[in-house]
Amino acid sequence: MTPIDAFDMVLFGGTGDLVMRKLLPALYHQHRDGNLPKSGRIICLGRSVPDNAAYLDKAHGLAKGYLGKDYEEEVWAAFASRVEYLKLDANDPAEYSKLADKLNEQQGRSRVFYLSTAPDLFARICKALSDVGLARVPNTRVVLEKPLGHDLDSSNEINDAVAEYFDEQQIYRIDHYLGKEPVLNLIALRFANTLLEPLWRREWIRDVQITVTEQVGVETRADFYDKTGALRDMIQNHLLQLLTIVAMEPPASIDADAVRDEKLKVLRALKPLTQEDVHTKVVRGQYRAGAINGKPVPGYQEEPGVPAGSKAETFVALKAEIQTWRWAGVPFFLRTGKRLQERMAEIVINFREAPHSIYGRGTSPNRLVIQLQPDESVRLYLMAKEPGNQVRLRPVHLDMDFKETFKTRSPEAYERLLMDVIRGDISLFVRRDEQRAAWRWVEPILDSWENSAEGPKPYTAGTWGPAASSALLSRDGLSWHEES
Amino acid sequence: MTPIDAFDMVLFGGTGDLVMRKLLPALYHQHRDGNLPKSGRIICLGRSVPDNAAYLDKAHGLAKGYLGKDYEEEVWAAFASRVEYLKLDANDPAEYSKLADKLNEQQGRSRVFYLSTAPDLFARICKALSDVGLARVPNTRVVLEKPLGHDLDSSNEINDAVAEYFDEQQIYRIDHYLGKEPVLNLIALRFANTLLEPLWRREWIRDVQITVTEQVGVETRADFYDKTGALRDMIQNHLLQLLTIVAMEPPASIDADAVRDEKLKVLRALKPLTQEDVHTKVVRGQYRAGAINGKPVPGYQEEPGVPAGSKAETFVALKAEIQTWRWAGVPFFLRTGKRLQERMAEIVINFREAPHSIYGRGTSPNRLVIQLQPDESVRLYLMAKEPGNQVRLRPVHLDMDFKETFKTRSPEAYERLLMDVIRGDISLFVRRDEQRAAWRWVEPILDSWENSAEGPKPYTAGTWGPAASSALLSRDGLSWHEES
Repeated sequence: MTPIDAFDMVLFGGTGDLVMRKLLPALYHQHRDGNLPKSGRIICLGRSVPDNAAYLDKAHGLAKGYLGKDYEEEVWAAFASRVEYLKLDANDPAEYSKLADKLNEQQGRSRVFYLSTAPDLFARICKALSDVGLARVPNTRVVLEKPLGHDLDSSNEINDAVAEYFDEQQIYRIDHYLGKEPVLNLIALRFANTLLEPLWRREWIRDVQITVTEQVGVETRADFYDKTGALRDMIQNHLLQLLTIVAMEPPASIDADAVRDEKLKVLRALKPLTQEDVHTKVVRGQYRAGAINGKPVPGYQEEPGVPAGSKAETFVALKAEIQTWRWAGVPFFLRTGKRLQERMAEIVINFREAPHSIYGRGTSPNRLVIQLQPDESVRLYLMAKEPGNQVRLRPVHLDMDFKETFKTRSPEAYERLLMDVIRGDISLFVRRDEQRAAWRWVEPILDSWENSAEGPKPYTAGTWGPAASSALLSRDGLSWHEES
Repeated sequence: MTPIDAFDMVLFGGTGDLVMRKLLPALYHQHRDGNLPKSGRIICLGRSVPDNAAYLDKAHGLAKGYLGKDYEEEVWAAFASRVEYLKLDANDPAEYSKLADKLNEQQGRSRVFYLSTAPDLFARICKALSDVGLARVPNTRVVLEKPLGHDLDSSNEINDAVAEYFDEQQIYRIDHYLGKEPVLNLIALRFANTLLEPLWRREWIRDVQITVTEQVGVETRADFYDKTGALRDMIQNHLLQLLTIVAMEPPASIDADAVRDEKLKVLRALKPLTQEDVHTKVVRGQYRAGAINGKPVPGYQEEPGVPAGSKAETFVALKAEIQTWRWAGVPFFLRTGKRLQERMAEIVINFREAPHSIYGRGTSPNRLVIQLQPDESVRLYLMAKEPGNQVRLRPVHLDMDFKETFKTRSPEAYERLLMDVIRGDISLFVRRDEQRAAWRWVEPILDSWENSAEGPKPYTAGTWGPAASSALLSRDGLSWHEES
């Protein structure tokens, strides 16, 4: 593994929520674990804070809360000495020379521009960086946060604009689900073992379920969310990316492009959805007033900032099919939503029943559950014989609990991905053609909804979504993992 | 499952070690667990004890020790009321009318004659039982303990003699390894799950190792053991039976003969050993003085009762091959011995390496370990990614610990098997043709040793046996589980 040398990490949107809540805490942890070279600098850009002292003050206050028991006074002090605030209006090209001067103080280091801003700024920022000579420079990378557009065209526009100033190899499109330990472990489980891969195909797998659910509602993001919805916010990126990890063919190497080529092939093999398919294979929902953990919560349309009569979907469940020899006939069910019964993220592989049972009824098919949230674990469900004179079978599970197994802290996805950017390892970032293929696949859904008089189906907050979500599976004789 | 009705269990050799150490404690446990009907009687036959009171006294004293913390005064008292001692010389046909009278007090119950005696008595006992009208009676079973002969001919003789008086469906040849929970679980794991069976073949399994080792020496059994040796005492029965469970094709049902047909097919498919094969594929050893757990122990030839210059083998390791589509080219290594480093019994399935490694060196092949002794467990070794920024793989294991998983007592093999006999379930007992096939396969080994000037290879007590045992595997580029 390439060691990390001197670096400058420039955080656009430095006063924003993502930087405060995720990026600075991630860098703090890596600093604490001794993974950052002494000379690594973190340069935070913003407008809303007057100067360095005020910025550090704000960051310190927030970090205490976000870091919880990991916060240590002395460690923070040392970490903070890496952090420099630069007041800069990202909209104003004239201000970028300040940034160039600051960066050019140091030569020969890797430079990362992390664009934690609204995507309509991406083009302007890239141009401005280019104008001051900071773009096509060796060891320089730009990190793009979602949403990269709201459909295929707008995503192309953004990517075209960025591509004017940066090469594809410099562009790190982040999808933090790809940095989660259980996802990385799924890749290892598949390709460093012989026990799963021979079974990882239509002959032995009946269906795959990928679920990412939240208990929270739209919170303070109504303005953004109402224009976006769950399909763009979660399915097009996170859930489809998880699907590629489950479904890809074994790559010839772990080189970034070998892996990304295989992921791309999956996205391109997704069976295109017709308008009719959208009606039968995609369920959209919107939450109504209900209760989460016994506490009443308002419906989506009562949330502050949501326009009356909004048709934004806060829930999507769909059935995807992959047209390959490996996966033909195996449904991949994806599901995501807000205000659902539990917060959880998991990938469930349901194996087929044994072709012939010598034990009569009462055996359940094998199942592999890769849980990303709330805990990280891999759990394998098998049938075993209960001790005793009878032959009584019972499902048991073999567990790999990451905390238990490794007795070591499992880093947050952002930690890993930030280190990868600094190091120049682009494997876990989304290539442009992947993104395009994902947009292309979801577009018929967006179009169909656009042209439909029907809105999303209502569901009560605190449930598992609209009944149509269960019906989607029961038509195939299946059920969602938590309902089975 | 057939419930257990009234029964009479007649234990020949009732004052002997097996009855005291295993059979009475097993029946005690089943009594305590409420699995024996009120009317079930246990009739113990012997010569060395004068009467019932003396017998119960002796049994009570020994049971306390063997039952350990499971001994309960009141439970024992209730259990003992089932036990009746009948002084009877098994050699004397005239005495059997006493037994017939005793049994004929009760009608319509299942009757079990458990021949816990030397095998040269079997024929006489069966004839005497027949003479008093106790043999070919409905619901009557006879249990034969090993050793059933010392070679193919003598085994045929015994079986022929027993078959004169009992039908094959009445004859329960016991091999207590078949009653062990992990062995029964291996059958369930293979046939009630889809996860293992597709991989359970030459394409994915590199080798199988079956090991049953003891720390004890020949103890007080020199007289018997020196004429028998490890091949007859362990390999011909226990280890070959375990091999059939690992290697058999999926039976069409769990009916006794469906399963035993499949086991038989395995024994018949064992590649016959030539005289040359015996030299290269079979290792015999005899222990010399050494130390067990740091305590010095004498060599085999210094044990009381062992004749000077004895060539009896106290250790055998061998490579068996199964000539079927499923197993061609997969070595099955069997190993057993006394005075070895640890007491253990396990079945190890070594899977092949992944056909292509994208992670470079440092991944180990998958492995399934079914442990029978000292603890009962099933453990699956996989490669997983360590948490952290690097991609560092590490072998981890998923465990099914029976005590932990089921929070229930795992019955001893003899408990289960005794209940099966009473119930009339013959599945887990060895059919005559299986026994014959096993003898047929080991006979070339016995012949070759008989005709060889070379004796067994010496090994130091407390080691894993002679060096030739390791060499047997290293010629195939392999090593025993505990050495790898």
